[in-house]
Amino acid sequence: MGGLLSIAMQESSGNSLCAPQIDPTSIFEHFRGNYGSELLSAAVAHFGVFRILNEASLDLDGLREEIGLEPRAATVVITALRAMGLLAVDSDDRLYLTAQAKEHLVAGGEFFVGDYIGLAATAPGVLNMVERLRTNEPANIDGAGAAFIYRDGIQSAMEQEDLARHFTLALSGRAKNVAPVLAETVSMEGVNHLLDIGGGTGIYSVAFLKRHAHLRATVVDLPHVLTVAREFAVKYGVEDRIQFVDADMFSYHPTEPAELVLLSNILHDWDVDTCKSLVTHYSKQLPTGGRLVIHDVFLNDELDGPLPIALYSAALFTLTEGRAYSALEYRGWMAAAGLEVSGPIETLIHCGALEGLKRD
Amino acid sequence: MGGLLSIAMQESSGNSLCAPQIDPTSIFEHFRGNYGSELLSAAVAHFGVFRILNEASLDLDGLREEIGLEPRAATVVITALRAMGLLAVDSDDRLYLTAQAKEHLVAGGEFFVGDYIGLAATAPGVLNMVERLRTNEPANIDGAGAAFIYRDGIQSAMEQEDLARHFTLALSGRAKNVAPVLAETVSMEGVNHLLDIGGGTGIYSVAFLKRHAHLRATVVDLPHVLTVAREFAVKYGVEDRIQFVDADMFSYHPTEPAELVLLSNILHDWDVDTCKSLVTHYSKQLPTGGRLVIHDVFLNDELDGPLPIALYSAALFTLTEGRAYSALEYRGWMAAAGLEVSGPIETLIHCGALEGLKRD
Repeated sequence: MGGLLSIAMQESSGNSLCAPQIDPTSIFEHFRGNYGSELLSAAVAHFGVFRILNEASLDLDGLREEIGLEPRAATVVITALRAMGLLAVDSDDRLYLTAQAKEHLVAGGEFFVGDYIGLAATAPGVLNMVERLRTNEPANIDGAGAAFIYRDGIQSAMEQEDLARHFTLALSGRAKNVAPVLAETVSMEGVNHLLDIGGGTGIYSVAFLKRHAHLRATVVDLPHVLTVAREFAVKYGVEDRIQFVDADMFSYHPTEPAELVLLSNILHDWDVDTCKSLVTHYSKQLPTGGRLVIHDVFLNDELDGPLPIALYSAALFTLTEGRAYSALEYRGWMAAAGLEVSGPIETLIHCGALEGLKRD
Repeated sequence: MGGLLSIAMQESSGNSLCAPQIDPTSIFEHFRGNYGSELLSAAVAHFGVFRILNEASLDLDGLREEIGLEPRAATVVITALRAMGLLAVDSDDRLYLTAQAKEHLVAGGEFFVGDYIGLAATAPGVLNMVERLRTNEPANIDGAGAAFIYRDGIQSAMEQEDLARHFTLALSGRAKNVAPVLAETVSMEGVNHLLDIGGGTGIYSVAFLKRHAHLRATVVDLPHVLTVAREFAVKYGVEDRIQFVDADMFSYHPTEPAELVLLSNILHDWDVDTCKSLVTHYSKQLPTGGRLVIHDVFLNDELDGPLPIALYSAALFTLTEGRAYSALEYRGWMAAAGLEVSGPIETLIHCGALEGLKRD
């Protein structure tokens, strides 16, 4: 948050934040290339995925039992290998080797390159990925002994003031690019009060508030994160229309009804059951005609790509208790919570908005 | 070297090795994604490349002095950043930030994502890359205390029998795919004797011998590597037309003239001066009408891509004393050695063949 932003603010027309001029997506894709190396090397040199599937095609549960992985970990590996074109799924949901994998990744074959890939088997990034996959638990932040995520029983970086500020600001680099595009994408018709769950710096709320003069917003997050969010609200001049609530998002009940609840880049931090309960919890609190908006990345419904999102999913896997989900998975949870789903509509940096309308 | 290869050999018509049915290139590209993450994170979080170039555009020497890197290291970083579309070069050869880098990688900007990239600043792969770049020296192989390359004064894995076998076979996974395509690509018209310098398993020679019944080949490499090569020659049934010479390739003089000298995936292991002297040394020994063939990967002549080769260059940088070079660089060394250059003609897995003809 330096001088340029203040200048941009002074020059802004006051009713919207602008989207970036240049799409930063490719920067994030280069940044996450390591997850491709690590998952491929782990699959080849540690889990024997290609040897096992060369013996027999197996469904996801069959394969994950063979390689000893929990469903979340197995989904992350298999999605990436499918996105790389190395595995495919037949009409009986069985995973099999593609022709490329059969020719090049089965030991003994004339054109086998698995031992070349295996030269990276003991690289620290690969060993760390193998450990994360085997334990199905997020890594601690280097030197901090704390996770990015927060819930009871986990020591979270977001509970330590200096770390919370550092990570909240660092992570907001992505959100600041995406927020103005999200605010252009989601209609605020009929919305007086926006409830922004796990809103971080509050930048998503700020983007909507700048665009809609009569809107009010409530941001729910942890105290140290909200300290940063309060500064953002002042810098962007929306402090009179935004409130901050230090609450546990898993059990929060708004004191005042919100016509729109936003879960922006939140659910990807959590496992399937936690996602379902968050979706259910906030759907219940919507008034009739209210909407739950899930703004996040979406794997395709087949869970076999796109590759950049499969690699981002690996990043989420190693740092949180979640992964990237497909729109199909989210739609199921939203429908079960009684919502009528539309979207997703693409925003920026692989994100999109999926809306669930509460009819009655 | 398992059962499948023996079967393939028995079934082969005896006069050629077949190329693989499926191109394995994408496997190598996924495998090397880590170098993109590491170079980007190093440039952003350790070397301050974007801060420096935001203050003033600089030529390569100016930038590398600012960031304290030797030419080889600087070329590897800058080539990758140019291939990512983050840096460009003006008509005065000065590096400047592209619009994307200016908007997203200069601290203080409203859409700055550098602190997000910086979250990986202390990842082991990034720290290792920073150390390699700063020292400009190859890493030791994990636990082996030895390098892939060999020359006087360096402890080489290729001098330890078990390691030499392991690495020679692992590295041959790539060469076995490429060799048959190289043999289709390079004419052996007028060639009776092929001299294969640093030939490893000898698979490139084997591919030419299988294709040309009257050809003989000499493979020069280190003793433990040649033990593996002898086994290959027997397996492929060419042992009567191939000889193996344990010699220092930097000073070797063939006892019998060779009409074609092959440097296949060798020069990328060595620095510019060593490359020049190898090219000069072997050009001198060619008879009139003889050819020196450099089979290797080629960066484009502008040294700004392609990205997969820029990332392979980073791999070579961290493991050897070399990097990927452009065809322009090779052409210069070949022309200085009195050769008339043609090519490169693409083979497989980013490789191509550049030919230099000795006219007089």
